[in-house]
Amino acid sequence: MIAIDWGSSSLRAFRLDRDGHRVDSRRSDQGLLNADGRFAEVLETLIDGWDDALVVMAGMVGSRQGWMEVPYVQAPAGVQEIAAGMCRLQSAAVQRELWLVPGLSCVDVHGTPDVMRGEETQLCALLPVLGPGRHAVLLPGTHSKHARVVDGRIERFSTFMTGELFAVLRQHSLLGRMMVDAPLDAAAFAEGVAMAERDGSLLHQLFGVRTRALFDQLLPAQLASYLSGLLIGNELQDLDAHSAPVHVIAADGLADAYLSALARVGRTATRHAEDTVARGLYLLARARELPM
Amino acid sequence: MIAIDWGSSSLRAFRLDRDGHRVDSRRSDQGLLNADGRFAEVLETLIDGWDDALVVMAGMVGSRQGWMEVPYVQAPAGVQEIAAGMCRLQSAAVQRELWLVPGLSCVDVHGTPDVMRGEETQLCALLPVLGPGRHAVLLPGTHSKHARVVDGRIERFSTFMTGELFAVLRQHSLLGRMMVDAPLDAAAFAEGVAMAERDGSLLHQLFGVRTRALFDQLLPAQLASYLSGLLIGNELQDLDAHSAPVHVIAADGLADAYLSALARVGRTATRHAEDTVARGLYLLARARELPM
Repeated sequence: MIAIDWGSSSLRAFRLDRDGHRVDSRRSDQGLLNADGRFAEVLETLIDGWDDALVVMAGMVGSRQGWMEVPYVQAPAGVQEIAAGMCRLQSAAVQRELWLVPGLSCVDVHGTPDVMRGEETQLCALLPVLGPGRHAVLLPGTHSKHARVVDGRIERFSTFMTGELFAVLRQHSLLGRMMVDAPLDAAAFAEGVAMAERDGSLLHQLFGVRTRALFDQLLPAQLASYLSGLLIGNELQDLDAHSAPVHVIAADGLADAYLSALARVGRTATRHAEDTVARGLYLLARARELPM
Repeated sequence: MIAIDWGSSSLRAFRLDRDGHRVDSRRSDQGLLNADGRFAEVLETLIDGWDDALVVMAGMVGSRQGWMEVPYVQAPAGVQEIAAGMCRLQSAAVQRELWLVPGLSCVDVHGTPDVMRGEETQLCALLPVLGPGRHAVLLPGTHSKHARVVDGRIERFSTFMTGELFAVLRQHSLLGRMMVDAPLDAAAFAEGVAMAERDGSLLHQLFGVRTRALFDQLLPAQLASYLSGLLIGNELQDLDAHSAPVHVIAADGLADAYLSALARVGRTATRHAEDTVARGLYLLARARELPM
């Protein structure tokens, strides 16, 4: 089968054998923002020469702005419920069997809805591995997700605008104009995490980035690390206080930052490879009993 | 005398009589960002024809990026201490007596410094009016200030990036792209304030702006009002819980928004005209016993 992870800015294709092992992979920058609606053409170009009949896709390709909107499955949900929500896509332009994975939605205690599209497939790869009991799974990024997993099912989750807020403040705010590019400064990052643990509004703590620079408590090369620690630390304040094991699914640099922030707030965490989407798509196709 | 309020984006000049009453006023867009270091030239052009010898200036003109840096006065401070920190500016190009008002600094309970430049002069106009006891004075804006006033002196204060965060999210984030311009929607604003009162990270509540739109709980024309309520409500969570009278110094629209948010969190507040800088400069010049 062919597994596709199709997001806003890029897409990745994996060719899998019958046991779900990767035999090949390709990458394209034709994410939703660049594909401009030419979904069939982009897909055929990317997987040209791979003669597998089954193509299963996850990510924003199944959103309202994607190829076809697939309704969200409501949490709590595990691999079976998510597989049951998969939709077949009929396309005259593609001579293959095309399937889309649904996103996942939930409603928080205040009645505010939350959504994910793509991360549910990464989580599907992890669910069978976690075993029974309660786990907290973090998927850091532009829109960071915290999922609570109970007995192999996603019970509920929350999204945090951590990555996007860092980017807009870095690029467009007064704080960003004071910063210079530099490698991560571990001490300044830890100071930001520590500041986030204290009382007070994030809106006030953000202004502290400026005043600490003004009074030479932080160098321009440390400001981005401090801001990153402050935002990630703020996000981690919402982590369930109970002692469920914590898991982080992220690429190396981001995983390092989260593990160090988690250690600082007294939590140990297990690191998992970011690249679990292909595995999740394989498990979903198998749960749905699609012909491979 | 001539009173000057010289900020980053604009400056205002007021001609005052011996009793501090305005006899004339002028305005220019040559704030620090546009003046490009031509301070003497910009000033002389703006006050051309006014023959008063004394010119007293407040705002970013006294910052490191301004005409001359005036060291911060450390809070607690009242009119006398701020007047004592005023500095005379010698300029061969200007045949007048030029004075700059210092900014105010303080250190919060976590050791983080905070600063204001310009707002201390607005506060100086209000201090003699407030009388004895404890008062909370809010100066909303790009960088919103909360000052605690005790017996006519500014004891300490905090800055919140409320206005700047609204602007960068409106203009540069995914949330902003979902919004359409519309007048303030009072119901959506109140919902945002109510959301801010609940537990949970602002980073999560911000993502709720997106999901509420996605699930049609809010219309595109309501999103900016909801976001504004969410940010202002978050800022107000840091307001001292005790029952000190609350005062708001702001222009009409912003004062309306803050008074409505304050009412929603159970606080009544007194509104004061935004345009108090000229009065503050007059009181500071008098306290310093400058020749008028």
